[in-house]
Amino acid sequence: MTIPTLNLREACGKASDKMANKHTPLIMNEWYVAAFKEDIGRHLLARKILNKRIVMYRTLDGQPIALEDRCAHRSFPLSQSHLEGDEIICGYHGFKYNYAGDLVEVPSQKQCPSGIGIQRYKLVEKGPLVWIWMGDQSLADESKIPDLYWLENENWACTSGYFFHPGNYVSMHENLMDLTHLTFLHANTIGTPDYASAPYKMELKEGHYKLIREVVPTTLSPVWGETTGLAGVDTAARIATSEFLSPGLHQVSVSFYDSALDEQKCENYKIHTAHILTPESHDTMHYFIVHGRDFALDDDKIEAFMHEQLFAAFQEDVIGLGALEAVIDDKDENHFEISVASDAPAVATRIYLKKRAEAELA
Amino acid sequence: MTIPTLNLREACGKASDKMANKHTPLIMNEWYVAAFKEDIGRHLLARKILNKRIVMYRTLDGQPIALEDRCAHRSFPLSQSHLEGDEIICGYHGFKYNYAGDLVEVPSQKQCPSGIGIQRYKLVEKGPLVWIWMGDQSLADESKIPDLYWLENENWACTSGYFFHPGNYVSMHENLMDLTHLTFLHANTIGTPDYASAPYKMELKEGHYKLIREVVPTTLSPVWGETTGLAGVDTAARIATSEFLSPGLHQVSVSFYDSALDEQKCENYKIHTAHILTPESHDTMHYFIVHGRDFALDDDKIEAFMHEQLFAAFQEDVIGLGALEAVIDDKDENHFEISVASDAPAVATRIYLKKRAEAELA
Amino acid sequence: MTIPTLNLREACGKASDKMANKHTPLIMNEWYVAAFKEDIGRHLLARKILNKRIVMYRTLDGQPIALEDRCAHRSFPLSQSHLEGDEIICGYHGFKYNYAGDLVEVPSQKQCPSGIGIQRYKLVEKGPLVWIWMGDQSLADESKIPDLYWLENENWACTSGYFFHPGNYVSMHENLMDLTHLTFLHANTIGTPDYASAPYKMELKEGHYKLIREVVPTTLSPVWGETTGLAGVDTAARIATSEFLSPGLHQVSVSFYDSALDEQKCENYKIHTAHILTPESHDTMHYFIVHGRDFALDDDKIEAFMHEQLFAAFQEDVIGLGALEAVIDDKDENHFEISVASDAPAVATRIYLKKRAEAELA
Repeated sequence: MTIPTLNLREACGKASDKMANKHTPLIMNEWYVAAFKEDIGRHLLARKILNKRIVMYRTLDGQPIALEDRCAHRSFPLSQSHLEGDEIICGYHGFKYNYAGDLVEVPSQKQCPSGIGIQRYKLVEKGPLVWIWMGDQSLADESKIPDLYWLENENWACTSGYFFHPGNYVSMHENLMDLTHLTFLHANTIGTPDYASAPYKMELKEGHYKLIREVVPTTLSPVWGETTGLAGVDTAARIATSEFLSPGLHQVSVSFYDSALDEQKCENYKIHTAHILTPESHDTMHYFIVHGRDFALDDDKIEAFMHEQLFAAFQEDVIGLGALEAVIDDKDENHFEISVASDAPAVATRIYLKKRAEAELA
Repeated sequence: MTIPTLNLREACGKASDKMANKHTPLIMNEWYVAAFKEDIGRHLLARKILNKRIVMYRTLDGQPIALEDRCAHRSFPLSQSHLEGDEIICGYHGFKYNYAGDLVEVPSQKQCPSGIGIQRYKLVEKGPLVWIWMGDQSLADESKIPDLYWLENENWACTSGYFFHPGNYVSMHENLMDLTHLTFLHANTIGTPDYASAPYKMELKEGHYKLIREVVPTTLSPVWGETTGLAGVDTAARIATSEFLSPGLHQVSVSFYDSALDEQKCENYKIHTAHILTPESHDTMHYFIVHGRDFALDDDKIEAFMHEQLFAAFQEDVIGLGALEAVIDDKDENHFEISVASDAPAVATRIYLKKRAEAELA
Repeated sequence: MTIPTLNLREACGKASDKMANKHTPLIMNEWYVAAFKEDIGRHLLARKILNKRIVMYRTLDGQPIALEDRCAHRSFPLSQSHLEGDEIICGYHGFKYNYAGDLVEVPSQKQCPSGIGIQRYKLVEKGPLVWIWMGDQSLADESKIPDLYWLENENWACTSGYFFHPGNYVSMHENLMDLTHLTFLHANTIGTPDYASAPYKMELKEGHYKLIREVVPTTLSPVWGETTGLAGVDTAARIATSEFLSPGLHQVSVSFYDSALDEQKCENYKIHTAHILTPESHDTMHYFIVHGRDFALDDDKIEAFMHEQLFAAFQEDVIGLGALEAVIDDKDENHFEISVASDAPAVATRIYLKKRAEAELA
């Protein structure tokens, strides 16, 4: 026996066809993170999001602005231009745009053509994140921005980072949903050998998918053991929830405690990680990460150690998924993929993403 | 308001459809500059022009030769071969070609196949330039080569340079025609703030388009002020003519003088710049530049200063248009461009280039 | 006269259409060399062959294994995974495969899905070479592996090397078949001026094509002259046979002797070169080379000198054919190629390769 029967491969193919992959159209009508708050200032920041070039800056009174990154005249990139007050002066022929995207001046003539402008995209600043709506602007509803209470809460301390990821966002969602891979891809950082076979349960609500894994008893990897004081305790508990919140957001929440202690006495340490996935194109992704903890809030040394350990692990994902996408790019007519039981929430996520994309096209 | 109405965008689209752009077929039946005179010698020079690979060299008696850069046998590049007298010996199996492109010897056999050869392209050397005709060789008419009298005139001194430009030649023609951009793209080199809004007139004859801009009074940028002695004079005049001469040639001519002086007494300083645009492909261009002046003919210091200042400015065009083409490559279904009054000669140029290209295909 | 008449070019086109070129489908049902014996060990070696990614390793008892280089779950490359005994543990979610390619363990669940596996490719180790069958595994017949007796023979000494070649394998076969090119492409290494015009004969049997060239009398190039003791002898003989043995193998065999001596007394020095051509893709090739000699068997100095000289020559082929393929990639509607008399075995080879490829598709 080597490869499965044709029947089985065809069945796999039919199952895969229902799931989003890197060729599925990107979902436009959704909130994505465009930038960290501090990335946007009194300079012209170029970024491509959902295959569209945008330029971002802040007005004099601090409002973040996102405009299409091209002049309406000869498509010169406004990001390679000049900010004058709240307006952009195109670096080619000096066409001036206000922050609404309206063309307000053409230096070579007295009269400015009316009714000309470029697309402005709605931005909403919430805590450390600036969210953008790239689709139909009339559908942008701020109340739909996912709520991450811990990002701005005095009981939580956060660190953040960014990776430019050479892969599609769908495989990153899938990666985050099934943390079985901690044992293997992250063997040298945040994984432990018992992680992959630990019991799990799942919740599959339309558009909100969860996998909860309970690793009890376990020994914590250094990033958690050394920072919670549970290092060396072989009765530790690690309860991890992977949670798809939106096409642009996955949250991992974990609590750690000593399962040998009385629930009353036992200290419970919690972390949240916001994995923020903003597609740049079908092949690339902006990967923003915010990691929060509810312990050792003012301990800079612990913070630095956790950040180093965690971002080393996240980089393993970036490298691993990049390699995986290269394999998929080379696939031939015999290619198939199988799913196993713990894939259920990831598969549900991919089916949901495909439905969302198809609904938009219809 | 942000982007224009659909009606307006469709009107823009219709206007743009008449103009050449980077996807318009290249014009074959035309004289282009293949090289500076001194680039061609007793070695095999490879260059791609209008998507065709050519090899150039000089015969023993100094005649410049351009041949198709491949052997008729197995397509080995003749430019990676060997020159023997006036003939090229292919570097692979030694097939020999005379300077007419005829195959004259096959080393592995006594008899050379008859009637075999490669394309020879007509070259004409005029002053510092070597012109080539890449299209139908029977149509090559030397009398149609644009006349640039100042290139070989004792009252003019010239310097020259070359850029490999990562963009199509059409946007470079457009760039040169409307010098409004001097105020913005060249703010740090040859532009002044008053340039963009100076009055202009235009002449639109079929195949010969001009825009004449009169900046009076003005203060000259250092490259002209310091070299003419008009530095600091706030009554200077700068009369610039942008002139489309052929698909491969644009000429900028400027005169400088002190508008406060009597016309009799007043010294008039003139410059010409030949912007020589030879498409390599749809995405790339050979950009040859010759700059001539009718003053300070023997002053090496002034010459070095002007050359440095000017070529810094031309590099700003190369970088800026490269950025612009990258934006256009990413355009989506909502892309549109508007034209303004001073674009008229550039628009006429682009319409003419499109007509020429289409006429050739018909 | 420059280019041939349309009639002649069309005749050339018809002839070329019958020959394989870089666009011809690759031949799957054939033995190719996957690696040198010593390349495969207790690590995971990734290689692409015939457009397919494979991973190779040795079992604990030394058997070489080749598997499809991807996990059946989410296509993670097994070559970026971990070898445990004879099994591969996928580096992503820990799926385990035995050396037959069967999936035997899924860490996140107790039961392993049955009937799942990845393709295993048959490998056969013969002397210094490991051969692979990439096509229909049921057709793999070891007895069809070309026999190169001298690779493992005490009367022969061998050295070997590898080039990653940026070109298709068809043009390399053609290159090897007509050694006319030694005089030109290898003028500075192994060629001599009289080589190209020396008399030759040919043998054209279906699937086995030969060209035998007799250069007598000649002076040997240093690589042979200095190693055989025939340096400076102007009555030397160089009898070279170029021989197509299979789509993946070309053999060059040469004998050298002094033609002025009596056949009885005269020492005859022989070399064989196995030019092993394993397509990686349509544009790239693994180029394995083994060179054997029946003289100076234990002379390390001679061996080092010959190796250096020969591999410098083979690199000239790699560079030259890379340049040639770039020209062909740029070909336009006027492109044609002619063949001459000494091309007959190469043309027969290319016709055979095309027939083989087409037969497989049918």
